Amino acid sequence: MRTAAVVGTGLIGTSVALALTRRGVRVHLLDADESAARTAESLGAGVCRMPDGTVDLAVLAVPPGRVGRVLADKQACGLARSYTDVSSVQAGPQAEVVACGADPARFIGGHPMAGRERSGPLAACATLFEDRPWVLTPCPATNRETLNRALELVALCGATPVLMEAPAHDRAVAVVSHAPHVVAALMAARLIGIEDDASRLAGQGLRDVVRIAGGDPRLWTDILAANAGAVADVLAELADDLSTTVVALRALTSADPADRALGDRLVSGLLARGVEGRAGLPGKHSDVLPVCVPVRVLIGDQPGELARLLAATSELGVNIEDMSIDHSPGSPSGLVELAVTATSATHLAQRLRADGWNVQRVPAVLGDRSTAPVPAPDPETAATAA
Amino acid sequence: MRTAAVVGTGLIGTSVALALTRRGVRVHLLDADESAARTAESLGAGVCRMPDGTVDLAVLAVPPGRVGRVLADKQACGLARSYTDVSSVQAGPQAEVVACGADPARFIGGHPMAGRERSGPLAACATLFEDRPWVLTPCPATNRETLNRALELVALCGATPVLMEAPAHDRAVAVVSHAPHVVAALMAARLIGIEDDASRLAGQGLRDVVRIAGGDPRLWTDILAANAGAVADVLAELADDLSTTVVALRALTSADPADRALGDRLVSGLLARGVEGRAGLPGKHSDVLPVCVPVRVLIGDQPGELARLLAATSELGVNIEDMSIDHSPGSPSGLVELAVTATSATHLAQRLRADGWNVQRVPAVLGDRSTAPVPAPDPETAATAA
Repeated sequence: MRTAAVVGTGLIGTSVALALTRRGVRVHLLDADESAARTAESLGAGVCRMPDGTVDLAVLAVPPGRVGRVLADKQACGLARSYTDVSSVQAGPQAEVVACGADPARFIGGHPMAGRERSGPLAACATLFEDRPWVLTPCPATNRETLNRALELVALCGATPVLMEAPAHDRAVAVVSHAPHVVAALMAARLIGIEDDASRLAGQGLRDVVRIAGGDPRLWTDILAANAGAVADVLAELADDLSTTVVALRALTSADPADRALGDRLVSGLLARGVEGRAGLPGKHSDVLPVCVPVRVLIGDQPGELARLLAATSELGVNIEDMSIDHSPGSPSGLVELAVTATSATHLAQRLRADGWNVQRVPAVLGDRSTAPVPAPDPETAATAA
Repeated sequence: MRTAAVVGTGLIGTSVALALTRRGVRVHLLDADESAARTAESLGAGVCRMPDGTVDLAVLAVPPGRVGRVLADKQACGLARSYTDVSSVQAGPQAEVVACGADPARFIGGHPMAGRERSGPLAACATLFEDRPWVLTPCPATNRETLNRALELVALCGATPVLMEAPAHDRAVAVVSHAPHVVAALMAARLIGIEDDASRLAGQGLRDVVRIAGGDPRLWTDILAANAGAVADVLAELADDLSTTVVALRALTSADPADRALGDRLVSGLLARGVEGRAGLPGKHSDVLPVCVPVRVLIGDQPGELARLLAATSELGVNIEDMSIDHSPGSPSGLVELAVTATSATHLAQRLRADGWNVQRVPAVLGDRSTAPVPAPDPETAATAA
C-alpha cells in the first residue's frame, strides 16, 4: 500500500492515518468538517487535500448510518480502488452499501476493537490499534484485492485481523460490549436516591461493575439502536435468569426448608454459571493462578517452632499461599503443610532441609522435573490456595 | 482498651488482632480450629490462650449464623465486658442474639467493609481496615460503654466508623455489594458457549463488569441467603428496567418511526439514569475531571501555523483537553480555541503571548483569582472536554 485516504478524521480515522503515515503510506485526510481535517494534518496524520489519482485504499471512518451513502459517492468520483469502514456494527452498513447502489466487490466491512474515552482527532494516537483485534467482515461479493488491502491495513496498524460474517460480528459485540453497557447502566441506576451513608459503603467491586455506565447516553443509544435486535436477544436471556434469581432469593426467605433448599440450589447454580462464563474469557497473564504444591514439615510441639519455620520460609523469599497444621493426638509434634508455588517448592524444601528441618518429599507436578513423578498435588490444598 | 479477645482467627479476625496488637492491646486468640489460632499467634497477632480475667472487648469473627450462639456462650463464661461481630449482614445476627438469650446491652453489631480475595489467617494484615468504612449497628439496648469500645476498636484499626440501623445497613449492602455480584454473574453467564472468535473481541469494559463474578458460588450463596429479601427487592427493580429495555430495543427495530422514536426515548432515558446513579458514587480523586477553560488564539491562515501553535503548547508542558478551530469566512486567519485545565490556562496564555501569539483574554473560573471575574467558561466547551 502506497497511498490511502481517510474519510472522517475523528479519533479512529486520525489514529489510522497516523499509523499509516508512520509506516510510509501517503495519506489524504478528508472530512466534512474542515477544521477536524486540518487538526489531523497538524498532528502529522497526512495531507489535507484530495489525491490527484486513485489511492490504494480508502478508510471510511464515518458514522455507521452514513457508510453506504459515502461509499457510493466516493466510488462515483474514483477515490480509491478498495474501501473499508470502521463501524461498530456491520450488518446494517453492509445492507446500506447494496441499497445505495455502491459496488460491494470493492468494499469490506471492518471494526477495529479499540477506542478511548475521549473523542476527536486530538485524542488520536498511532498505537491505538496495536495488539487489538480488528474484525473484517467480507461479504460474498468482496474481491480478493480488497480483502488483501484490508489485511495490509490491519497489519500496518499493528492489530490482529479476525475474519467473521457480519451477523456473527454483531451478535458477538452484543454479548461482549453492548449488553454489558446496558447491564452496567441498569445497576448504576439502582444507586439513584440511596442515602449518603449507603454510598459510602461502595467498594471496588461496585465501581468496576458500573464503570462503563458513565458513557454518553446519546452516543450509546445510537450504538444500541444499530444493533438492537442482537442486544435484545442477549438481554432477554439475562432477564429470564434475573427473574429466576428473584424467585430463588424469595424462596430463601421462606419458613419451609424445602423452599429454602430449592432457592439455595437455584442461586448457587446461577452463580456457578457466572464463574464458568467468566473463566471462558481469554486470560490476562496476571489472572493466571500459580499451581501450588504442599511442602510438608514435621515440627516439634514447643512454643515458637511454627513462628521459627515461618520466619525461615520468609527469609528464603518464598510466599506461602496457604498453610495447615495437623497435630497428631498424643504426639508432641505436628505436621505443617505449606502450600507454595510449584516453582519454589523444591528450592524451599532443599533449603529447609539444609537448615535442619524435617521436610517430607515434595510431590512432583507437571512441568517440574526436579523430583520423581510421585503423588499429584493435593486437590484440596490447590483449591484452597486458589 | 488494654485487653481484647478475637474469637475466630480467619482473615478478618486475625487482621483485627494484628492491628490491635500493633497498637499495644493484649489480644487473646480463640478458634475452634486450634491450628488457625496457632497460625495467627505465629504471625504476631496475640497469644493463643484464654484470658485469666475479663477482657475489655471481644470481637466475634465467626459466620453470621453463629454470632448469637457464640455470644451467649462467651457471655456465660464472662469472656469480655463488651462484644461486637464482623458480619456482612446485621439484622439476622441481631435477632439471633435475642433469640439465644444473650445480653443485647453488651453487644453491638459491626461490619468492617474490607476483605481480600484470599481467606484464612495467612492472608491477614494489620492495615486491612485503614481508611475503610466500618459500619456499627447499635440496637436500642446497646449500652454506651459498648458503643465506645467499638468506636475505639474502629479507630485503633484505622477505619472510619459509620453508625447505621441494622436493616438500613442490610439494604445498603444489598445495593452496593450483593446485587452487583448477582448482576456480574448473570452477565458472565451469557459468555458460556460463545465462539472463540467472539470472546477474542472482549475488552476491558466487559472484564470490569464481570470481574467479581469469579467469587466462590458456595460462599456467595450463603451471603445472598443471609440478605435475600433486600437483594431480591433491588433485583426486582432492576428486572423491571431490564424488561423495559428489551421492549424498547425491539421497538428500535420497528418499521414504524413512532415506535423507533419511543424506543430511542426509553433507551436513552434508562442510560441517562445509569450515568446519574454512577455520578452519585463518592469520587476517587482520579475520577474527578478537571475544570476546563478555553484559551483562544488568533492564528494566520498559512500552512503550519496550527502545528506551530500545538508544538509551542506541548513544549510548555500543557495538555490540550479539547480544541476547535473557527475559520472566519473571507478572512485569512482563524480563531483556535484550546481547552486546557483551569490551573494551566493563565500560565499558557501568558507564555504564548510572550512568544508573540495573539491570545485573547482568558475567562476566570471559580477559585482562579489571577484574572478578573469576567465570562464563565463556555458550557459547550466544558461539556465536550468532559
